[in-house]
Amino acid sequence: MRVMGIDPGITRCGVGVVDVDASRRATLVHVRVARSSPQVATHFRLRSIADEIDEVIAAHAPEVIAIERVFAQENLQSVTTTMQVMGAAMVCAGRAGLPMAVYTPSEVKAAISGNGNASKAQVEHMVARVLRLAEAPRPADAADALAIAICHAWRGTGLLGAGDDSRVSVSLSGKVHARGAVTPAQRTWLAAQAAQRRTGAVDPRLRRGGR
Amino acid sequence: MRVMGIDPGITRCGVGVVDVDASRRATLVHVRVARSSPQVATHFRLRSIADEIDEVIAAHAPEVIAIERVFAQENLQSVTTTMQVMGAAMVCAGRAGLPMAVYTPSEVKAAISGNGNASKAQVEHMVARVLRLAEAPRPADAADALAIAICHAWRGTGLLGAGDDSRVSVSLSGKVHARGAVTPAQRTWLAAQAAQRRTGAVDPRLRRGGR
Repeated sequence: MRVMGIDPGITRCGVGVVDVDASRRATLVHVRVARSSPQVATHFRLRSIADEIDEVIAAHAPEVIAIERVFAQENLQSVTTTMQVMGAAMVCAGRAGLPMAVYTPSEVKAAISGNGNASKAQVEHMVARVLRLAEAPRPADAADALAIAICHAWRGTGLLGAGDDSRVSVSLSGKVHARGAVTPAQRTWLAAQAAQRRTGAVDPRLRRGGR
Repeated sequence: MRVMGIDPGITRCGVGVVDVDASRRATLVHVRVARSSPQVATHFRLRSIADEIDEVIAAHAPEVIAIERVFAQENLQSVTTTMQVMGAAMVCAGRAGLPMAVYTPSEVKAAISGNGNASKAQVEHMVARVLRLAEAPRPADAADALAIAICHAWRGTGLLGAGDDSRVSVSLSGKVHARGAVTPAQRTWLAAQAAQRRTGAVDPRLRRGGR
């Protein structure tokens, strides 16, 4: 299976491709970081990131694209632009006709290191080890994109189907709608989301940890 | 001036084009609502919305695209998908090489009706009157897209330049960075954003009113 992983970001967007065989052995195919300059208006930054994602799809023909889910809510401004990058990447996947999967940061960490709270350094170390590289790809966005791709190849649970954005959603009335299995990370997210809606306070679980 | 307005939404995305002459007289060129089915995975929904926006750009050649800013934070799920639609629309504008402008809902309401808290019905009524139509375009998303286009033609203050997403941003330290003039609506938003970051509670001003 050939998987593209995307770590969405407006300034640095990690894009990695790995091959994973039936025995779960993973091999690096390609990795890059699509950069865009803050000197340029946001929509032109998004265009250049989308263009690079399209380039990698055309050059390396992944069978599926996995992307990291963006959470609320430390800084509205950066969450906004990161979600817009996610939207741009989703258009690329949609136009390529590929299936897409979404994973939370803790799902990715757990898949690659066995620990959903693994440090950035631990994730980088494990990416290098899994891909049999002398050292971790730099910058961190590159290693993260590869970790996301490996996470999908090993777990495969995050595929987007019918419904808004995810296998799970919360309606305005607070009712949780789940399609298929809900992972522990999703359960935590849903509980935090429900708490935030109840109390109006941002639940600490909804902050994106350590990024 | 020919302006395209976009009211971003995953289920219904309003897309309107108006011509506005030097005497501020506005004429309807085209309006439609790009719809996508919840039966389809989100990235394919975003692709079809982007395809429709590209179609309208190709058919009607706007000189600038204006879009409504999405705010946090009643329902994380719907904010996420709406921001992704915004990202998809921004890629369309970027690829067409067009300038892009962003307005808050209250800026749009104030421009078209003189009242930043105008009701949906008041906005629809004013859109019909300004464009000399017998009745307001339906559904509301169509009227909103036209209101956003008219807002840009009449105000022209929302053009995106260098910097993240907007003329204004708040750094993690809480410092406000503003480029150019800051409108009263932006000032309110920044104050609410700063309050949220300080207290952890979602400021009511950050909720998207009446949608």
